[in-house]
Amino acid sequence: MSEGIVVPQGLIAHGRGEAFDYILGEETLPAATAATSAAAALLLMAEHPVLSVNGNTAALAGKEIVNLSAAISAPIEVNLFHRTSKRERLIASYLKRLGAGDVLGVGKSASSTIRGIASSRRQTDPRGIGKADVVLIPLEDGDRAEALSRDGKKTIAIDLNPLSRTSRAASVSIVDNVIRAIPALTQASYRLKKMRRTSLERFVSDFDNQRNLESSVREMIEYLRGWA
Amino acid sequence: MSEGIVVPQGLIAHGRGEAFDYILGEETLPAATAATSAAAALLLMAEHPVLSVNGNTAALAGKEIVNLSAAISAPIEVNLFHRTSKRERLIASYLKRLGAGDVLGVGKSASSTIRGIASSRRQTDPRGIGKADVVLIPLEDGDRAEALSRDGKKTIAIDLNPLSRTSRAASVSIVDNVIRAIPALTQASYRLKKMRRTSLERFVSDFDNQRNLESSVREMIEYLRGWA
Repeated sequence: MSEGIVVPQGLIAHGRGEAFDYILGEETLPAATAATSAAAALLLMAEHPVLSVNGNTAALAGKEIVNLSAAISAPIEVNLFHRTSKRERLIASYLKRLGAGDVLGVGKSASSTIRGIASSRRQTDPRGIGKADVVLIPLEDGDRAEALSRDGKKTIAIDLNPLSRTSRAASVSIVDNVIRAIPALTQASYRLKKMRRTSLERFVSDFDNQRNLESSVREMIEYLRGWA
Repeated sequence: MSEGIVVPQGLIAHGRGEAFDYILGEETLPAATAATSAAAALLLMAEHPVLSVNGNTAALAGKEIVNLSAAISAPIEVNLFHRTSKRERLIASYLKRLGAGDVLGVGKSASSTIRGIASSRRQTDPRGIGKADVVLIPLEDGDRAEALSRDGKKTIAIDLNPLSRTSRAASVSIVDNVIRAIPALTQASYRLKKMRRTSLERFVSDFDNQRNLESSVREMIEYLRGWA
């Protein structure tokens, strides 16, 4: 926050995540692993996969996002809820220092719009999310997750709250901490790359996001039962 | 935060509370109500009850703390995890603007120490927490909650996380949002004031904090079951 990458509101959102991570036992559980395989398959089959990055994601897992971007040859787009061009540039240059190539979505390059959401939060880059068929949306807000789905894009959420609108709106929701989930997604991508397309299709068709979210909730209940 | 009352770390802690409040259904449930009655009885029977207030509590429920202070004739002491004398004065003057009388614990008046915890976090006011037998500790950190208990003081926590060290160390833990819990505690105090001391003693002796915390966890499980 002191460097301008994260906004104060982002700290509150981060705290919410910490609490949900706590009642997951701060580890990657089976439901998240299943979602990660489906997510890797979706990204590998996509025509135009894009990794959407906001301030919290950059601060928590900037290097991990850069590694994933390289593993699946997907561009990174800066996409801020609290948008200022100064913060966009800060985050883009931070990611470039971590090894990112071109970073989309900065300033005037975000000239496309997502329909159905307010103001500056709908701006996207026509070379990135604008033309994407699959978008990774770590720590996304509910309005935008829903709008991306309505726009016909497949979305992969990483969100520790399995009850959130983002988790429910996404095609695949990984209920896990970004610092664990993004490296796991990179590893899964390297593993699934070697598979045939029919196998990748199976990972996606066998995956039911609503049922998997219910599994995540049951994993939290299981943890809490140890205290009741 | 922009006024200097809350520190950035406080926003993260607040976010954690929001998540736990969410899985309580954002309402006061039976376990919290039982704890509130026991807490009101403890405060009314105390020789020297003190209300400990930090930045988050002042920002979220400053007026509510002032009202409780008046209802039970207990002084307010500013007690900060991230202590600076500037922030102490800011919070004290904020509470005075809300109607507080004298506010303890500011600057050199915090000349007593709690044993067993580090640095500036152990400073207390000899007229307040220093001589208190019962201390209300809303949104307290675990180290200090444990140290106050070791010092022989009875403590009443208000903490949305029923698994936290604060909740487990306290004599009575109210698992509820401070914005609901403090007014409820004020109301309970007015109600219990009319009762005989033997009735107040019963509220305390009938209360088992560990069992009540388990009830709070079960209430959270119940909420989550609706999603699984």
